[in-house]
Parts: sequence; structure tokens; C-alpha cells
Amino acid sequence: MNELVLREAIKPGLVRLTLNRPDAFNSLSEAMLSAIKTELDALAKDEATKVVVIAGAGKAFCAGHDLKEMRAAPSQDYYEGLFKRCSEVMLGIQRLPQVVIAQVEGVATAAGCQLVAMCDLAVAAESARFAVSGVNLGLFCSTPSVALSRNIGRKQAMSMLMTGEFISSEQARDWGLINEVVAKDAVSQATEELADKILKKPLPALRLGKRLFYEQIEGNIARAYELAGQTMACNMMDETALEGVQAFIEKRPPNWQK
Amino acid sequence: MNELVLREAIKPGLVRLTLNRPDAFNSLSEAMLSAIKTELDALAKDEATKVVVIAGAGKAFCAGHDLKEMRAAPSQDYYEGLFKRCSEVMLGIQRLPQVVIAQVEGVATAAGCQLVAMCDLAVAAESARFAVSGVNLGLFCSTPSVALSRNIGRKQAMSMLMTGEFISSEQARDWGLINEVVAKDAVSQATEELADKILKKPLPALRLGKRLFYEQIEGNIARAYELAGQTMACNMMDETALEGVQAFIEKRPPNWQK
Amino acid sequence: MNELVLREAIKPGLVRLTLNRPDAFNSLSEAMLSAIKTELDALAKDEATKVVVIAGAGKAFCAGHDLKEMRAAPSQDYYEGLFKRCSEVMLGIQRLPQVVIAQVEGVATAAGCQLVAMCDLAVAAESARFAVSGVNLGLFCSTPSVALSRNIGRKQAMSMLMTGEFISSEQARDWGLINEVVAKDAVSQATEELADKILKKPLPALRLGKRLFYEQIEGNIARAYELAGQTMACNMMDETALEGVQAFIEKRPPNWQK
Repeated sequence: MNELVLREAIKPGLVRLTLNRPDAFNSLSEAMLSAIKTELDALAKDEATKVVVIAGAGKAFCAGHDLKEMRAAPSQDYYEGLFKRCSEVMLGIQRLPQVVIAQVEGVATAAGCQLVAMCDLAVAAESARFAVSGVNLGLFCSTPSVALSRNIGRKQAMSMLMTGEFISSEQARDWGLINEVVAKDAVSQATEELADKILKKPLPALRLGKRLFYEQIEGNIARAYELAGQTMACNMMDETALEGVQAFIEKRPPNWQK
Repeated sequence: MNELVLREAIKPGLVRLTLNRPDAFNSLSEAMLSAIKTELDALAKDEATKVVVIAGAGKAFCAGHDLKEMRAAPSQDYYEGLFKRCSEVMLGIQRLPQVVIAQVEGVATAAGCQLVAMCDLAVAAESARFAVSGVNLGLFCSTPSVALSRNIGRKQAMSMLMTGEFISSEQARDWGLINEVVAKDAVSQATEELADKILKKPLPALRLGKRLFYEQIEGNIARAYELAGQTMACNMMDETALEGVQAFIEKRPPNWQK
Repeated sequence: MNELVLREAIKPGLVRLTLNRPDAFNSLSEAMLSAIKTELDALAKDEATKVVVIAGAGKAFCAGHDLKEMRAAPSQDYYEGLFKRCSEVMLGIQRLPQVVIAQVEGVATAAGCQLVAMCDLAVAAESARFAVSGVNLGLFCSTPSVALSRNIGRKQAMSMLMTGEFISSEQARDWGLINEVVAKDAVSQATEELADKILKKPLPALRLGKRLFYEQIEGNIARAYELAGQTMACNMMDETALEGVQAFIEKRPPNWQK
């Protein structure tokens, strides 16, 4: 097997995508971005999958863009296209109907750190490290800053962006970039346990909920409540919610097919 | 006394509203929402009250919507109306001229957790617990997510919304959902002590300030500064501010009537 | 030397502005605001400076507006003009091409706390204290709330604004208002060490990056990615980034002139 992104069906409803370019620290070459996009496009139509885990093969989670490739063809047009394609992949994670969990076992730098920030949830090893280190090369992590500044406070984001320094997993968790820190050999299991909790929920609630969450957060609070109220009404009319609420009233487990 | 919302004048300037449906964990039935709205509408015209405390009778703070009632009349129209009425109550807390403090002694779940998030300030018992647990019944907490995501980080909000799990008071404080955690038998007193600090401030500053705070936070920073500058100029022209500043200059306590 | 704002060239690329009205706790009189504006306007055209430190002479960092001056000429027009001029100075910090670090060795209150919040980064002494205490005088810190609510959570901001109480440096760091807490006699050195890290980065990355950061944070995420992608493309076409990336590929230090 030699693909850039490995797709594994871990169990019903749970898929893991593994960035598989360990010798290049899973960096986001054009081919890698394209491979991730292909997987996301397929998942967007996949009605059976509830949770997607994104992991990295080898020592790194993801080291950002492929700098050799980037350096080889310098032109404003090329770079604009590249960052546009990358941003589409990043937004694709947020727009994906599935809940996406980053499983971070090594370093996540630049667009790799952005990838973690764009996931809905993230579990990391104690030994994982996070940086938006482009500034060290003279290339400010502008696109990563979009995701980072929507996860952590401004001063903390500016500190990472302007110094390019690494932060630990504990720091990342305390600032809000990730959810959970576990021992290195427990990351895969902890991620699956988090996924298992979500797999128990019915599909419509997860899908309506994720979409609403990112929609409502962009607007003012009154508009956010309008959107949320409509979503809850739709959600409540779904058979899974009617059954879930009925089961709660009758103090029995819900009988869900999806 | 058998009202759904108990209204107590604790001391001059301080009113406590107690959700009083302890057998139903103070859940937000249509009648309860209506009773809260009646109280908020009255308070909106009340020039004597500076601080409003919202508490819950019995073991729970508030367990969210009344699921039996919701399940009894399933229709898209009904649910849209219900969530609209609930959102108006929630926004009514933010639009209230008074400072509103949640006094949380038991669980706050779903729209109960939303209620805490919508209050300006919150004090909770060590033993209190918070969850947006609708997803467990197949009903994603969409409207609570509006309030929650404006109090805590995205990843932390998504974790609560997607797993439906409880968090502790300490966690809620560290993430930003509440202000203070105290021993269970000290919640009422700690809430009153917090209110006392605010009661000492003159009314115009509190009212102009609260309104400005939620207005400026919705827009871009340049527009926010315009609004804030106008508010400060109005505030400064009020006799309480002129007296307060004068007293400060003269190193004496201010002489305020309101 | 008797200027209101002392300008020191600490080393190439690093300038320190010291608010120099220690007897008045460096309060922001009209003359002080005007002096800061003059310095910021000059720095905006200064292509040699990468980092600006803002410090306070004497015991306080900055105690906010000059209340005696404010009280002397009460009129709505005067106050609107004053707060407009002050907001322009505050926004001027964010719009400055340089990275701005607050060096906080004493109290920072009201517009002084706002000044800390508007800086890109902040280092403070253990003994420093922060408050938006206008409410104690009947003058709600409306303009400071604009900056504060973009640094820390809503409930924490409301708590500071409504009680007027001081928080410690540790609290300020944990909430996100500042980056670093050090011993009182180490603040100057810690600030310079932080500046040194940034001085090593090339100018275009710092300038493009800072501007992009505050632009992208105001809009929705899709628009933010558009802006960020364009910025990264421009940044990558700059000779410093091309050299920086090339040096990385060749495993050698970059050879930068700026």
C-alpha cells in the first residue's frame, strides 16, 4: 500500500484517514492536498460514517506545506492557487457532515497546526508539540492564523505566530487548541473512546448540530438564535429525536437504527 | 405560594427570581417560559433594581426544556414557535437593563446550561454540574450552543455538545462559563456578596455599560469603539459620573442617590 | 529630559516608548494622548523598527484617563472628541506595522488596562495589577471593554467591568490578557528577550502578518481564508521568504538583510 492518505474503516460509523508521507513529515504537497480532498469529497456523500479521525503516519502529525515543492515554482499565481486549494481542504473539514477528530502523536507545525485547529475535536500525546513556525523562515503563518485565532485567545495566538515557538500539549489544551492530552501510547485508544461516545448518538443530531454550530458562530447572536431555533425544530421532527425523547420519558434506552 | 417563578426583593436594588418547579427539575415548560418572560418584562421597566439573581428551587438549577410537553404536540410549527419563545427569553436576559447573576446549586443541562451562559455573571456550587446533553436523546443542543460558544472555546463547546457529558464547576470556571465556585452551602451568600459589589455602583453606569458591552461585541473593532466612545460621553455627562469623578479628585466617597 | 513620552532606541529594530508622567500615574491626558499619537505616527513610517515596547515610568503602568482634566470641561462634545482621540490612539497600536509589546511593571487601570489589551503581546510583573475600575466612579469602562472583550472571555470581562476589582498578573495571564508573568526586576529583561525573538524574523513577514491577523479576525472564516491566502502568496514572493525557505531546504541559516 502506497497511498498518500490511508483510509481505514475502524468500525461501523468510524473512519480513520492517515496522512501517509512519513519521510516528509506528512507535509501537504499538492498531491497530498489532492488526496485529502478526494477523501473528504467521498466522505461528504457517505451516509454511514459519523466520525472521521485524522492521524499522521510516523513521527510527525503534519509539518505543513511541502517547502521544496513550494520553492520550486515561485509565482504569485501559483501560490495564490496553492493556498486557495489548501484553504478549501481546511474549510472542507469544517463543512464535512461528520465529526472530525485530530489524533496528534507528533509535531503539528504551520498548516499541520492549522489542520488540528480546523478539526472539531483533538486528542494529543503528551509528547506532541504545536507551532505556527512559518515566521522563522520569513513566511508568516497567515492561513494557519485564521484557524488558530478561532481556537485560542488573541495574545496567545500572536505569541505563537510572532515567535514561531513550539507549545506543549498541556499548553495547547489549556489555551483551547485541543481537548485532551494522554500518554503517547494511549492516543489512538483515547481517540477511539472519544469517537465511541459520539458513535452512540443518532446521525441527524450530529449532522444538523455540526452544521449549525459553525453557521451560528459567524453571525450576531439574534441571527444565531434564529438559525438555531429552526435547526432544533427540524431536528426535533426527526424520528430519532422523537424516539429519543420518548425513550427518555419512558426511562428506557432509545431504539435507533441510525 | 405556588408560582412558577418566585420573585423576592432581597434588599434594595436586588431581586431574586427562583425557578420553582423542583419536581420537574425547574424545566422550561411553556408556562415556565411565559412566567420568566413576565418577570423579565416587569424588570425591564423597573428603575429601582440593579441586580437580578436567577436561582433554581430544589436539587437542580434547570434541566432544560420540558420534554413531556415537547413530545406531546410534535409539529414543525409548534417547535419553531417554542424555540423562538425560548430564544426571546434568553435574549431578554442579555437585553435586561439589570446585571443578571446565575446562582447555580445543582445541575444545569441543555437550555438550563444555556440560561447560565446567557447570564452576565454566574456563581456555582462545587457540586454543580453542566451539560448540553440533548445529543444523548438525538436532539442536538443547537440553541444552547449559541450561548455556550459565546462563553467558552470552540473545541471545548464542541466536546460538550457532541458527547453530551457533564463538566464540573471547576472545569466550567476554567473554561469561562462561570465566574466563581464555592462550597454548596455558600452559593447563596457568595452570589449576594457579588451582587453587593455591583449594588454600590450607580445605576446609569451599570445600565449604559451592560447595553454597550453586548452591542460592541457583535461588530468590528472600529465600529465597537465608535459605539463605546458615544456611550462613555453620555455616561460622563450623567450627574453620577460627574460626582463620582469629582469625589475621586477630592479623595472623598461619592454622594450618590441612585 | 521632560517629554511626556520617552523614545529610546534600545537596539537596532527595537524602540521603547515610556509613558513619562509618573506623578500622575502616566494617565492619558490630552497632551499624553497627543504625544503617543505623534510617536505612533512617526513609527508608522519607520521602516527600520520591528518591535515597539510600551512601558510606564514610575510605579504605575498607566492609570487611564486624566480625571482632573476630564472633570474640568464637562460637555458631551468635548467627551465625544476625547474618547474618539483616545480610540484612535488605541486603534493606532493595532494598525502600527510594528509588533507592540506592553511592559507592565505596575497597575494598569481603565484606559491603562485597555492599552495592555490593545498591544499585540504583554509581559507583566508578578506584582502588576489590572482593573477596569471606572464603574467605581460611576463611569463604566466602555471603551476599555472593547479591547478587554477581545482578549478574555465574556463572563470574566463582565466581572471585571461590573465590580471594578483588580486581578493579579497570574489571573490576567490565565484569562488571556497578557502573555507572561515574571519577577518585578525581570520585566524589562523578559520583554527584551521576547522582542529579541521577533527581531530575528524578517520585516515583511512581521508586517504582512500583523496586518492580516487583525483583518482576518473581523470577518467570517471563508473571507478570512481569502485574505490570508492572498497575504501568504505576497509574503512567499518576497525575497526574504524565498531565501528563508531555500535556506531551510539547504539546512543552513537564512541570509537576510531586513
